[in-house]
Formats: sequence, structure tokens, C-alpha cells
Amino acid sequence: MRYDIKKLLEEKKPIIDATIEKWVPRKINMEWLERICGNARYEFDLEIIQKTVIDPFWDFLDRGGKRWRPYLFLLVTEALGAKPEEYLDLVLIPEIVHNASIIVDDIEDNSEFRRGKPCLHKIFGVDVAINTGNWMYFFPLIPLFKNREKFGKEKFQKILEVYIQEMNNIHFGQAMDIGWHKGWGKEITVEKYLQMCAFKTGTLARMSAKIAAICAGASDEVVEKLGHFAESIGIAFQIQDDILNISESELARKKGGIGEDITEGKRTLMVIYTLQNASKEDAQRLEEILNMHTKDEKLIKEAIEIMKKYNAIEFAKNFARELVKKTWEEVEKLLPESEAKQKLKAFSQFLIERDV
Amino acid sequence: MRYDIKKLLEEKKPIIDATIEKWVPRKINMEWLERICGNARYEFDLEIIQKTVIDPFWDFLDRGGKRWRPYLFLLVTEALGAKPEEYLDLVLIPEIVHNASIIVDDIEDNSEFRRGKPCLHKIFGVDVAINTGNWMYFFPLIPLFKNREKFGKEKFQKILEVYIQEMNNIHFGQAMDIGWHKGWGKEITVEKYLQMCAFKTGTLARMSAKIAAICAGASDEVVEKLGHFAESIGIAFQIQDDILNISESELARKKGGIGEDITEGKRTLMVIYTLQNASKEDAQRLEEILNMHTKDEKLIKEAIEIMKKYNAIEFAKNFARELVKKTWEEVEKLLPESEAKQKLKAFSQFLIERDV
Repeated sequence: MRYDIKKLLEEKKPIIDATIEKWVPRKINMEWLERICGNARYEFDLEIIQKTVIDPFWDFLDRGGKRWRPYLFLLVTEALGAKPEEYLDLVLIPEIVHNASIIVDDIEDNSEFRRGKPCLHKIFGVDVAINTGNWMYFFPLIPLFKNREKFGKEKFQKILEVYIQEMNNIHFGQAMDIGWHKGWGKEITVEKYLQMCAFKTGTLARMSAKIAAICAGASDEVVEKLGHFAESIGIAFQIQDDILNISESELARKKGGIGEDITEGKRTLMVIYTLQNASKEDAQRLEEILNMHTKDEKLIKEAIEIMKKYNAIEFAKNFARELVKKTWEEVEKLLPESEAKQKLKAFSQFLIERDV
Repeated sequence: MRYDIKKLLEEKKPIIDATIEKWVPRKINMEWLERICGNARYEFDLEIIQKTVIDPFWDFLDRGGKRWRPYLFLLVTEALGAKPEEYLDLVLIPEIVHNASIIVDDIEDNSEFRRGKPCLHKIFGVDVAINTGNWMYFFPLIPLFKNREKFGKEKFQKILEVYIQEMNNIHFGQAMDIGWHKGWGKEITVEKYLQMCAFKTGTLARMSAKIAAICAGASDEVVEKLGHFAESIGIAFQIQDDILNISESELARKKGGIGEDITEGKRTLMVIYTLQNASKEDAQRLEEILNMHTKDEKLIKEAIEIMKKYNAIEFAKNFARELVKKTWEEVEKLLPESEAKQKLKAFSQFLIERDV
């Protein structure tokens, strides 16, 4: 049986969004502030907090996103025999942290647009955007400790260790990416690129799956293996994103044209692979175009052609497929047969075969 | 007996700095990265992480600072009968988070200089500075869970709840400050100003004292009261900072002149008090000067004179003194007589009487 993951994601989205809204109402009041912050010693400025935190938060969350990290979270709990609805509050952790990381990323890259609107810092200012993004790194833990009795000290400790470890790691992944953009690195190898992806894109998927497995009471080994599998999905997702960017895809159309990554001069897996395997002439030409930050369609096409000449897209595609396949095999043995297990498999395939 | 707190702070600084350096060596290697991040699945770019995280980290930490939050931490553990040296690794939490918050603050305010050097983002770029600052929000928790056996699950859970709660609150304090700067608020009252201080400046002192009290095995009530006391110190510290800024003080000289806050148009406790108590004419004139963002010495002096006319400096001074005195009285009863207790008292007085 083949699952329509796109449809399943769409079906789950309202439940996930309702959970977020349960914790962060669109219009906050004093009661909410006191529940979240403790009683005011003096007096909260409710109106200002609404304008500088809650409004930008919803401006961003309402732009959409596939919510696949929460979906992964729910699938993992279910595949391990737990009841997903019992842990629904924790989907805030991967989803809100993910959105926060994009808000912050956009400031770091000084980007203009995100999900069809100006970036958050372009609308509310850099100060509001950083502060909101950083708040979003911590807030999602509050539902966890408001539910502390349900989890017990053992799970609570494990969940927080995962959170802190991944939040540490994600900044090293970002550091590698930033450093390379700045030209501070020597040669970027395929291995280093994949490590960056594992820490930058893989880490929240890993966090999501590991926390889900802890909730379900899985052993340390199962937690580790599911984390590893989710990290692979994250890496493969990133690779697929990069492939779609230079293809005739819906995603590229949405982003306003094929090859935006080439304009940005991004060193994707395909670029690195081509630079390492191409003739000196082709490699130089590719680097040249990437360094131009050009929007010229002819040049972008030329760059893509060079990558195609060395089968870089196939290499990337195969790499992503193999990665997910191999790590799925490890996980498959650990999970009992169930519908959730089959959905988890279909889900991982969807993320690397999607065109949007 | 009167303690020379300035000297005691200077004496403790090397121990605190050595502890930070134990956890974040100036020159990292692969072994360190693997200890902190786990083994690389692919390959770390050691050189890039050194350049984009570790170098900016030390550039900032080496600029000094009084390290009073770690000192408060150590004093509280000692005053509660515990051995401070056993919990030394945890001083990283308040100190590194504090430094991180300044790095981020400077980006939000688009500031130029900090502690005698260009702000971190002016040297390394906004991307590196945000990423390093944000990493510093999470990294200090790693020593905690590397020491997990020592603390046990009970303390571990309590420490992390305090950390998350305060990290949530600090962003609401900052939100109030940012919102006011932007002119998004109506009237800023004394009560709202103090709440902003409690969350912005008070929160890390509170975090420091509460974690220290938890380490020492104090009851929930004692943890709460010590947190409250430390929060008061934090608020009073901020008020004293604002007083020194418009006085003939060493601090003002260091910052390059009296009244920098007036140039910035900052709404301090003194400004708010004056606006609420002055004649309509004087209040308007003060607002006028604050909105000019002027560096003109004559105008700055005029603004200070208006505040002096309504005894705003004395009001602020008395407020800070009373605040610390009252909350000290609550704490005094809870602590057994000891040298550490006397130092704690002297320490709180030092922070509000200092001229630097």
C-alpha cells in the first residue's frame, strides 16, 4: 500500500497548528503572560509584548511550511507503540525552533524574502526579529515542563539533554556554512559539506525523532538509531532542495526561477562534486559563474550544464536515496510491523522524491 | 567588618576565567569537538569553527567585565553551606549567557563600541556575531549534563526549569525595551520600567542565585527568596548604571563622556520619574532633548539639570537602596551566620554604591 504523504501532511497540519495556537494565542492577555512568565513583580506591558513578540511570531508561522518535523515526531511515537496525541504539546519543540532558525538565518544572510513575503526583519526590524527568533528557541520548552508530572524525571532529563546537544550542534553547522560563505575555508570537501548538512538541516529532524522516541519509552539504542535515521532524512531533504533549485520544479518556480542557488553562489553537494571531478577548465568556469552572483539566465544555464556534464545531479540524487535507504534498513529491524512504520518509510521517500 | 568587594571580585576573576577556558580552550582540536558535539558522522571543519565561533568568543570574553554574576553564584552556594568549588563549572551559565546577551543586544541596537573595542558584529560580521552569541546561550548547559551524575535527576530538572524560565523571561524584558525604543508604547510608567529591568537585568542575577541555591540543596522557598533578592540586586545594578551615566563617574568617563544615555534617548527610571513629576514645560523640554539624540554638552547638561530639579537622581538612588535593603532582610533570616553571608550583604551594597 502506498501512502499519499502530501495529503497526510495536509491532514495533520490543522492539529499541529491548533496545538501551537493553544500555547501561543494570537491575542495574549495578562493571564497568559502570568502563566508563561510567572506573576509580574511590577507590571507587564502587555500591549508591547503583543506587538514585539506575538504579532511577529504569527506573521511568520502563518506563512505556512510543511510542518514535516512535527509529523515525523508524531509518526515516530506511533511507530514505537505510544499514543501520539499524548505528546502533541512537544511538537512545538522542532517546529518552533525550526521557524526560529529560519528567522535568524535570514538576518544572518541579510535575505529579502521568505515564503512569499519580506523577511521578518524587513517588516519588524532586526531588533524585533532577533528577539522573537531567540525567544522561539526557548519558549517551546515551557510546555514540556508544564507537563513535567506526565514525563517523569528520567524522560525530562533525556529530552533536555537531546535539546541542548542539538542546539549546540546546530550552531556549529551554521558556523561552517557562514565561514565558507565568507571564504574563510580552504577546500570544502564532500565529507565536510555533509557534516554541515547533518548539523544544520539534520539536527532538528534528529531532535524531533529522538525526543519522540524518548517519549515512547524507547531504549537508548533505539533513540540513537531513530535519531540517525532522521538526520539522514534531514540531509537528504537538503540535497533534494538543492536539486529542485536547479530543476524545472514547482519549488524553483515558487522561489522565482531556476538556479537561485547559483545566483547566491551556494556550494551545494552538486557544486562540490563537480569541482572535484570536472576538468580544470570546467571547474574554473563553474567557480567563475558562482562568484558573479549573476541573475543572467544564460549563465545560470551554463553552470547547470557543467554540473550535468559530470552527472552531479544523478550523483546527488543517488546519494540521497542511498543514505535514506541504508539508514532505514537499520531502523526497520527495530520497529514492530504497523501502519505507522509503513507511513514512516513512505514519508522518508516522499521527502526525497517530492518536487515541492 | 567591611569587605573590599572590588578586591574580592578581582581575586575570583582568574578562577572563573580558568573555568571558562577549561571548557572552551582558546585553540580547539578534534578531540574537543567530539567531546562537545559527539563524533562526526562525516568530517568537522575544525579551522572554520575555530574562526567563526571560538575566536569571536574569546575576542569578547577577553574584553573583561566584572564577572559579578559568577561571584554571586559562588557566594550563594557558600552562604548555604555548600562547597562552591564543587559547582564551579556552572558559573559558565550566568557569565556566558550574560556575555551572549550583550553581543546580541549590540546587534539589535546597531551599536558601535563595547568595552573599548568595536562591537563583535563590527569586527566579525552580523552573521558570525549572532551565531556565536546564540551558541553561547546553549553551550554553558553542556558542563551541566557532563556532570549529570553529580547533580542527580532532581537538581538537574530544577536547574533546567530555572534556566528555561529565565531565558523565556529575558526575551520579554528585551521586547519591552525594544518596543519602547521604537515608540510603540503609550505611557511608560515606573512600574513597567521596573518590570522591564527585572526581566532584562534582573533575570540573569536571579538565574545565577537560584541555580546556586538548588546546587546547595536549598528548599523551594529559599531558592525563590534568594532569586528574588538577586533580581533586586540586578534591578538596583541597572539603576546605579543609569545614575553613573549622568554623573561625574569613572564609568561615564570610560564610556566617553557624561550623558551617553541622553544622546541615546534612553527612558531611565530618572527620566520616567521626571516626566511624571515635572511641570508640563520641563517635561516637554526633557522629552525634546531626548528625542534630539544630541551630543551637544550644553543640551545634555540641561537635561540633567531638569532631572536634578525634581530630585530624580535621589529618587532613583533611594529606590535602589531600599529595594536591596528590603529584600536582604527577607533573605537574612534564612541564612545561617557565616562569612559568606556577610560578604553577600557587602556585595549587594557594593553593586549599588560603586562608581565604576
